[in-house]
Amino acid sequence: MPRSFLLVILPRGTPFPSPAKLTGMDYQGRQCRAQSLLAPLRLQTLLVTHPPNIRYLCGFTGSSATLLLNARQCLFFSDGRYTEQARAEVQGARVVIAPKAPLTMAAEWLHGHSRGRNRKPATVVGIEGDHLTLREHDRLRKMLRPGFRLRMTASPVEQARMVKDSDEIEQMRRSAALGARLFARALEVIRPGVAEAEVAAEMELTARRSGVEGMSFPTIIASGKRSALPHGRASNAVIEPGGFVVCDFGVILTGYCSDMTRTVYVGRPSAEARRVYDAVRQAQLAALEMAKPGATTGEVDRAARNVLKKEGLGRYFTHSTGHGVGLEIHEAPRVADGEKTVLCPGMVITVEPGVYIPGKWGVRIEDTVVITEQGCEVLAPTGKELVAV
Amino acid sequence: MPRSFLLVILPRGTPFPSPAKLTGMDYQGRQCRAQSLLAPLRLQTLLVTHPPNIRYLCGFTGSSATLLLNARQCLFFSDGRYTEQARAEVQGARVVIAPKAPLTMAAEWLHGHSRGRNRKPATVVGIEGDHLTLREHDRLRKMLRPGFRLRMTASPVEQARMVKDSDEIEQMRRSAALGARLFARALEVIRPGVAEAEVAAEMELTARRSGVEGMSFPTIIASGKRSALPHGRASNAVIEPGGFVVCDFGVILTGYCSDMTRTVYVGRPSAEARRVYDAVRQAQLAALEMAKPGATTGEVDRAARNVLKKEGLGRYFTHSTGHGVGLEIHEAPRVADGEKTVLCPGMVITVEPGVYIPGKWGVRIEDTVVITEQGCEVLAPTGKELVAV
Repeated sequence: MPRSFLLVILPRGTPFPSPAKLTGMDYQGRQCRAQSLLAPLRLQTLLVTHPPNIRYLCGFTGSSATLLLNARQCLFFSDGRYTEQARAEVQGARVVIAPKAPLTMAAEWLHGHSRGRNRKPATVVGIEGDHLTLREHDRLRKMLRPGFRLRMTASPVEQARMVKDSDEIEQMRRSAALGARLFARALEVIRPGVAEAEVAAEMELTARRSGVEGMSFPTIIASGKRSALPHGRASNAVIEPGGFVVCDFGVILTGYCSDMTRTVYVGRPSAEARRVYDAVRQAQLAALEMAKPGATTGEVDRAARNVLKKEGLGRYFTHSTGHGVGLEIHEAPRVADGEKTVLCPGMVITVEPGVYIPGKWGVRIEDTVVITEQGCEVLAPTGKELVAV
Repeated sequence: MPRSFLLVILPRGTPFPSPAKLTGMDYQGRQCRAQSLLAPLRLQTLLVTHPPNIRYLCGFTGSSATLLLNARQCLFFSDGRYTEQARAEVQGARVVIAPKAPLTMAAEWLHGHSRGRNRKPATVVGIEGDHLTLREHDRLRKMLRPGFRLRMTASPVEQARMVKDSDEIEQMRRSAALGARLFARALEVIRPGVAEAEVAAEMELTARRSGVEGMSFPTIIASGKRSALPHGRASNAVIEPGGFVVCDFGVILTGYCSDMTRTVYVGRPSAEARRVYDAVRQAQLAALEMAKPGATTGEVDRAARNVLKKEGLGRYFTHSTGHGVGLEIHEAPRVADGEKTVLCPGMVITVEPGVYIPGKWGVRIEDTVVITEQGCEVLAPTGKELVAV
């Protein structure tokens, strides 16, 4: 796969999108809202470099670009590899293509449009501290000074992305529904003697044929002792009789990730296996009950954790209860102990408690939910009674 | 998929690996070599945070960890999600698991082991500038001062990774061989009326069944006008008669990425199609000829570019000729205009010139090669005559 650009392909600006290009997403509204946040954040300019943030604001799905927002303008910079794609996808922003790193192009544009190099006060340029590398920051700083001051911001775009608009919820619903269908396929394939990777392969083939862009993350099929690995990617291990199989999977559809986990038992579950499974299920239901407007994400986490503690399994629940999901598989808010983010309608989070007993087994149950006016709605309701295959 | 840790799972150190854990990779040798670079780089400590660098040094395949190297020690920090995995995988480093961000754990360890907070001169801690985010750097700086000075380094680990050792070349050969088999599958599937995504699905199923960890990158199947998109992921577009189909794909096997591109023609190619294809093929052969010890990667790029310029196609070759490949699909060195890296035996690079005529078609031909004593060896030799399907 080619990495970098080299030569100019017709640098030119594309003004505003023709209506034919609009795919239903309110890109211009999103850009306007981001622009309106600049003054309260005391920024004259915001440089957006994180690809999902760029996709959110203008629709570009490539991996190398910079979006420059100021009070009046929105400019999109990318290199020759993306000439065609930028023309086809970018909406609401002026497209500038040149044979340079996009961040360099943005810096040069800022220089060219500043009112003198020693202008005071300096122009304050917001940068995404969670994404810009130290090296990129260093380069940008050297290119821009004097006359500019870089300020690290918690990206206002990521804040905005926490609350999905109705177009996004519709996309996530479709993504979740398609994702859930993969579990039906998994149930057909999981049998003693079948390799975990074969189960993943069949699920991924179903996904591909359904038109997904890709999987949200490497499919987790963790059987037997491997089910105690919270991130146990499907391996060549063969599923053995008598044990749990954790299936954690998701698809990307029109950019939006689904995320779902079900755990099944191969053979006849022992009383102990049933007890552990049931504890996780109760913990998950308790957290779903708590997921409503006004509750904090920390309270959702606590609800699941308390159930498992009561069952004496608290120490085996080694990760947080969930996370935001959308254009990224892991995005804000965190659904973890002590988190203060207050849930509000339109937020989409996962609820996924688990119990992992090293060397023995593991169970996790996960749904993706959208917060509604009254509580929450599971995006693709799927049974969670213990299934024995 | 769960995101973050929360509770302690048995913090404890694992000393040195039992021989049973060794998988053939020389992790201790790599750690020793990295440690021996600290003094010349004037670093007392190096914090390694980039996952492929961590995998290279100690074998850990998870996504969240920090490795701390000083002259005498190698410590591995991770959180509760990875307790089991760290025990199974990490070699040559002491494993420390706690319910904190790995970087925080490393900072606390440094504090606990420093000779007084106001020690002078300050301990110089190397950090990976190309990977550490501005936010992580800021947090680390606040946790460490005074007594410590952070210094951004071009990671010496990435420099070391450029030249593969014999174990790695063996893994890459296996990965390339398996990757090449996917093209045979693609040739069976590519027909007018078949969706690009279906071709990708069949290739990925073949890959999964062969035991890969995953694909190196989203499979590119770009047909008709879409072949002019250098990064045209397989879409739901249906392959039409009369046009090129660019197939760019790779697998990850035991961590090592393969990368290969072939372009086929659907139907009977016109004289013009043949001319464009042949120009790209000649450019690729010229670059392969130049890929030998002593040549710079810039000269390899130039060799391909000159052929396409002579054919009047230079302006349509919009990316660099190649890149290093190994544990990452894109790694050092760059094979691009003006690059000065001198090739030496053991380096593994791609050679992949292409021509992209917007709105019309595109052609790319790519092999992955290892530099040998005399020249270079294509890792999985595969025909590159124009195939018409």
